[in-house]
Amino acid sequence: MNIRRVIKYIGSMIILEGACMLLPFVVSIYFKEKVGFYFLIIACVLIFVGAVVQIIFKSDDRFYSAEGFVTVALGWIVLSILGAMPFYLSKVIPDFVDALFETVSGFSTTGATILNDVGIMPKCMNFWRSFTHFVGGMGVLVLMLAILPTQSENMLIMKAESPGPQVGKLVPKVSDTAKTLYLIYIILTFITILSYKLSGMPLYDAVCIGFGTAGTGGFVVTKNGCADYSMTSQTLIAIFMILFGINFNLYYLIIIRKIKDALKSEELKVYLLIILISIFLIFVNIFGVYTSKENSFHNAFFQVASIITTTGYAVSDYTIWPMFSQCILIILMIIGGCAGSTGGGFKVSRLIINFKAAINEIYLQLHPNSVRVVKFEGKHVNASIVRSVFAYTIIYVIIIIVGILLISYENLDFETTFSSVIETFNNIGLGLSKIGPNGNFSIFTDRSKIIFIILMLTGRLEIFPMILLFSRNTWKRST
Amino acid sequence: MNIRRVIKYIGSMIILEGACMLLPFVVSIYFKEKVGFYFLIIACVLIFVGAVVQIIFKSDDRFYSAEGFVTVALGWIVLSILGAMPFYLSKVIPDFVDALFETVSGFSTTGATILNDVGIMPKCMNFWRSFTHFVGGMGVLVLMLAILPTQSENMLIMKAESPGPQVGKLVPKVSDTAKTLYLIYIILTFITILSYKLSGMPLYDAVCIGFGTAGTGGFVVTKNGCADYSMTSQTLIAIFMILFGINFNLYYLIIIRKIKDALKSEELKVYLLIILISIFLIFVNIFGVYTSKENSFHNAFFQVASIITTTGYAVSDYTIWPMFSQCILIILMIIGGCAGSTGGGFKVSRLIINFKAAINEIYLQLHPNSVRVVKFEGKHVNASIVRSVFAYTIIYVIIIIVGILLISYENLDFETTFSSVIETFNNIGLGLSKIGPNGNFSIFTDRSKIIFIILMLTGRLEIFPMILLFSRNTWKRST
Repeated sequence: MNIRRVIKYIGSMIILEGACMLLPFVVSIYFKEKVGFYFLIIACVLIFVGAVVQIIFKSDDRFYSAEGFVTVALGWIVLSILGAMPFYLSKVIPDFVDALFETVSGFSTTGATILNDVGIMPKCMNFWRSFTHFVGGMGVLVLMLAILPTQSENMLIMKAESPGPQVGKLVPKVSDTAKTLYLIYIILTFITILSYKLSGMPLYDAVCIGFGTAGTGGFVVTKNGCADYSMTSQTLIAIFMILFGINFNLYYLIIIRKIKDALKSEELKVYLLIILISIFLIFVNIFGVYTSKENSFHNAFFQVASIITTTGYAVSDYTIWPMFSQCILIILMIIGGCAGSTGGGFKVSRLIINFKAAINEIYLQLHPNSVRVVKFEGKHVNASIVRSVFAYTIIYVIIIIVGILLISYENLDFETTFSSVIETFNNIGLGLSKIGPNGNFSIFTDRSKIIFIILMLTGRLEIFPMILLFSRNTWKRST
Repeated sequence: MNIRRVIKYIGSMIILEGACMLLPFVVSIYFKEKVGFYFLIIACVLIFVGAVVQIIFKSDDRFYSAEGFVTVALGWIVLSILGAMPFYLSKVIPDFVDALFETVSGFSTTGATILNDVGIMPKCMNFWRSFTHFVGGMGVLVLMLAILPTQSENMLIMKAESPGPQVGKLVPKVSDTAKTLYLIYIILTFITILSYKLSGMPLYDAVCIGFGTAGTGGFVVTKNGCADYSMTSQTLIAIFMILFGINFNLYYLIIIRKIKDALKSEELKVYLLIILISIFLIFVNIFGVYTSKENSFHNAFFQVASIITTTGYAVSDYTIWPMFSQCILIILMIIGGCAGSTGGGFKVSRLIINFKAAINEIYLQLHPNSVRVVKFEGKHVNASIVRSVFAYTIIYVIIIIVGILLISYENLDFETTFSSVIETFNNIGLGLSKIGPNGNFSIFTDRSKIIFIILMLTGRLEIFPMILLFSRNTWKRST
């Protein structure tokens, strides 16, 4: 383990985080909030400490997969702890575990909260909460790579942080890929915020909800959340959530005018198909709950978009919907967005590969001597990727089961227990029963909150980096 | 598809079922129940029809895996429909779907019931219900193979019907393996019944509960079920349930005095370890619920044994236990017994292989150039078995998710919906909430009962035969 290099990287991340904190400080000046000074102070400390680390820890060039994974895992933990400082030191969130929960929920784009009323929070604090969604959405490290000079090992970091089973290089240089992705991300976020503003949302809300949409996070800035905005705004939010759940490579293809290639994407088709079918089924099922067809459709559309993209905004209390609709939402929670999007969850591509590979296996059981390969996006998926997707799925299920067992100790109802694990591990931020649109995580003990923090990070980093961080093997040898 | 041969096999199964129905007829004579004549009449019809089928359908020798799977799947469906006739024609269970549900629940050793009070059923009918557990436990077809003359294709049938990822030949000839297994099964069942009788249970109860224990089924013969028997009897039931959840190959090893080999079994160790840990955790967790430590232990011991072996007997209403204990039970429901036992569920061996193979994959992610193999029971598990276990798991999860979605249409609470699918698919017969020890399946609509019937059969036959039965490919060609 090249620990010096890992620490050097984390040093850069700390500087970057410090720089990011200057933004909420600016917001606090605008709104004349004294509490904003905490951001300035902490930002200065972080930039200073990060710079010192940079200077002290010089290292040679050896850098392997393991380092990539460990940098990502350790980096996210450090960033979350430091990111919680403004909440904690300013006593806006006086309990440290709560402050950490809120920050991890932000960076991991979960959007689960322990706050009973976000509306009474200082505006600069809410801005920081929402901004963590934006930073976390595309990956803190990918952002760093976009800024840092090119290095050969960066692909390893990107692979470790990016969501989905496969990472492709868009352009030959990794730092260029990171830059391209981030540029698309920033432009799309800007369009989102502008559209929200034009639809009548206050600028501050438009910016914060825009960050939440872009990172598929889900933090809101008023007590009633998205229910406060107009139907037009809500519809826009739903549309943009779906857009941010799509693989960003496709936007790149569109930019370089390979629109046909983008539209041919198998994952995109399945993703949109799942959305359409879910909206239809829920729309029909909740007919009786709402007064008009328009209302039923609007609610079905918004919630499906919000849940499958793992954003977690809500415009209605779907815990009163029939169980069938709620079960569809649970399934969407698990599926999640497309690989390479800001969305969390299991990912549509993994679903497709799993499904095809499993069907393939049944076929081979029947015809033991035949040869049949799994194809995805027109390409042959080789055996090692199939195995790794299978293994990912197994570990994914095991983590959920263990999570449920640990949280069940709270002795809440099964629906709350089950959905609390799903919604944190899949970075959604909205569950069922007691943690639906009208509930929040303040009902849990600190012990459970820490478990949720681990689940959120593990889910956002797609399991492997977190497992490797805590594996003895990782720290044993230098290779 | 060699359809003539498949039909010929099913003909033999029908004769065998007819012969089995003579037993409840004898019971009805003993208890002077007129309704028992239905068994005699139906038995005669079945034996006659089966014999005619045998004579008409002669076939050549071609017989492939596909035929094995189809014979098993189709055979179980035909046997269930015919097995429901005594209930349905005698109007003891006047609704056909209900009668079929009860029979499938019996043969698949699930033990879920639609009856509000089994105590008021005629004794011969209850005997038939329990006897289906005994027949289904070791496999209807394995029983047939034990009786029929040796044929080379029999291994294919055994592979298709037997629970667990791998089927080994105990002795060179398949019919001898089947005979050996059945002999162990019958002797062990006899010991079970005798022990129950000696512990003070009425003979009729001892026989019926003995069948239910042997097949890990769970049908009872009185309204209160096992709660009616003495503590000694209950303890014996718990012990025998655990014994029937163990791979029968181990009993064979013990018989041929390879006791050390039997005790070395990895699956056995994990199985017993899971049981011990679960008992301990639940025992500590339900301390407050019962008046004495003995009582807590007894209840924890009995329920863990009952649930992990997928039997489904109950001596207490565990739906009042804390959620933590209930979640442990849910996990045990999913795990199930050992491969090659009469228990259902996912199987301990699959759990081990999945776990080891997934860990292996993580290791390979970190060290892409290294070679590491998965070992189980001291042997190298080859890649194709790992893939097939992985694929099984994926399909297993997909079926549960689809099942939950279909059953959610009943609009019951999530806990009931979730556990109803788990308990039927894993052949347990006991769930949580509304279908716990004090509930039953009469609350569901016919539509859902049919889904449960499909789930019970699919679960008992370990998915593949049922999928192949309904796959177009199976019927397309003759290979």
